[in-house]
Amino acid sequence: MGNRMVKLARRPKGMVTRQDFTIEDGPIPEPGAGEFRVKIEYISLDPAMRGWMNEGKSYVPPVGLGEVMRSYSAGIVDKSNNPAFKPGDAVQGLFGVQQYALSKGERVVKVDTTQAPLQRWVGGLGMPGWTAYFGLLEVGQPKAGETVVVSAASGAVGSIVGQIAKIKGCRAVGIAGGPDKCRYVKDELGFDACVDYKAGNLAAQLKEAAPKGIDVYFENVGGEILDTVLLQMNLFGRIPVCGLISAYNATELPQGPRNLRALLTQRLRMQGLIVFDWANRIPEAIAQLGAWHKEGKLKIREDVREGGIDAYPDVLNLLYTGGNFGKLVLKV
Amino acid sequence: MGNRMVKLARRPKGMVTRQDFTIEDGPIPEPGAGEFRVKIEYISLDPAMRGWMNEGKSYVPPVGLGEVMRSYSAGIVDKSNNPAFKPGDAVQGLFGVQQYALSKGERVVKVDTTQAPLQRWVGGLGMPGWTAYFGLLEVGQPKAGETVVVSAASGAVGSIVGQIAKIKGCRAVGIAGGPDKCRYVKDELGFDACVDYKAGNLAAQLKEAAPKGIDVYFENVGGEILDTVLLQMNLFGRIPVCGLISAYNATELPQGPRNLRALLTQRLRMQGLIVFDWANRIPEAIAQLGAWHKEGKLKIREDVREGGIDAYPDVLNLLYTGGNFGKLVLKV
Repeated sequence: MGNRMVKLARRPKGMVTRQDFTIEDGPIPEPGAGEFRVKIEYISLDPAMRGWMNEGKSYVPPVGLGEVMRSYSAGIVDKSNNPAFKPGDAVQGLFGVQQYALSKGERVVKVDTTQAPLQRWVGGLGMPGWTAYFGLLEVGQPKAGETVVVSAASGAVGSIVGQIAKIKGCRAVGIAGGPDKCRYVKDELGFDACVDYKAGNLAAQLKEAAPKGIDVYFENVGGEILDTVLLQMNLFGRIPVCGLISAYNATELPQGPRNLRALLTQRLRMQGLIVFDWANRIPEAIAQLGAWHKEGKLKIREDVREGGIDAYPDVLNLLYTGGNFGKLVLKV
Repeated sequence: MGNRMVKLARRPKGMVTRQDFTIEDGPIPEPGAGEFRVKIEYISLDPAMRGWMNEGKSYVPPVGLGEVMRSYSAGIVDKSNNPAFKPGDAVQGLFGVQQYALSKGERVVKVDTTQAPLQRWVGGLGMPGWTAYFGLLEVGQPKAGETVVVSAASGAVGSIVGQIAKIKGCRAVGIAGGPDKCRYVKDELGFDACVDYKAGNLAAQLKEAAPKGIDVYFENVGGEILDTVLLQMNLFGRIPVCGLISAYNATELPQGPRNLRALLTQRLRMQGLIVFDWANRIPEAIAQLGAWHKEGKLKIREDVREGGIDAYPDVLNLLYTGGNFGKLVLKV
């Protein structure tokens, strides 16, 4: 018995490959003073991971070469020298892509597995949910009656953005890839409409789905979709920028949006966000999302993949190829 | 004696040419009930004019083919059937590129020529000044000690943005083209630094001029300069987008900024603005700008061109080639 770990071996170019990582076994770590040990059960796979592998200025320092790959994970405390965390406690935190982690409790959230299963706490009730909550409400500031469009609408963040928009009395329109995802977004999540960017003529589809124009565009993807949406934004529209996944694996920076002039003519506000900016309000998000989930207003779906630690590189790439359906989670 | 007028004859492609306009004489118009007539003395030449000539959705309707070209102008009331405007009153308004205009007083501002000469009221104390005032203070929200960078820094809006930044206790850095403009911005307008985008290596120049990074970037130009600035923005920086002049004459939409990811990593806010959004606060801007001007804190320079109405197409193009130095004004 040991601790299997995924370490970053080199900085990937483009999509990650197995060769970018070292997967190795080490001893199960022993908690020191004030520390506790978590046996990790679910690892969250997030688009931001690709950025963490790059060198250079970003909102968090890059993962160092030879270090365990950073990740949000959920697990159970199995040994503790910290009175605030007891063996058996279910927790969520930045525990990394490995089987066991040590922590002093920093940024660790205790979760209630009677309210939702453990996997959901690295999904819709975890960071993606908080991101949707603060990004839409604080940056997007949707008003009842407005039209909210979200890209990657079947994804971890997008699926929740649209449902919160509905709860707030807005028209919710998703953008997703393929008829299955679109059907899920519309029929199961209850968006008013969902357009399929793979079906072509996105501009015409959007015009039909958002006939009164777009007041809030929650941006997860960037690239051509942003360019198309820009031309349909209403006066004083808001564009929370949560992700630009279309560029994350690019070896050369892709072209930027050509239609930025819309910012000027429509007086749009485009604003980047990171959920950590609301770090001290996470409990509010958890409480509200949990309540909506319990009332049946917030449907959450995980795409849990088997294969354990070793499957990490392949499963991660599903995010960038659109191969997942629901919040992507790796079962340890 | 007649009224010489510049009418839009066709929609220009790229830079305007003389052939895009009809320049013709008509009768001097007679004011009807509630109207007054203005003898125009100075015509403001603004980057936005090029956009007004294009078809399509923008913040104001395009100038119709066969219509007198729209412009801000300043002149003297010479005949009036409107009790609020008397012969001899100096006024500023959307009077068009012609020698005489009729008005009912809508959006017309009476100006005080004892406080500043008439030409200045279509310059720094006119729309460009109001744009700088609201754009910087309301959208940019600079705080004392922060670094404000402005492009087209020797221009009508940019020159005032930097001076207001100084008044508010910020470090003001200009971007301008050529050593003469840079010297003017630094030595005469009192910016802390000015970098010459024509001298090459803008990134290194900027890093030296704004060593603590950029908190507010007041955007007048777009294109490559924006891309360079994006990578030097500080956390929670603001980018008021006032103009994107680099694209106004493009026959194909130029490439957009590749470095939009900075919006996300630095949580930037990029926001378009049009001075009309503060239409009911124009008197506040006039009073404050006038006071600063009087105190000697706000230096204003016009580049007044002779040649009358007929010179309009050629003089306008100076804006897009960087051929003017100070607020460009055509003397009728």
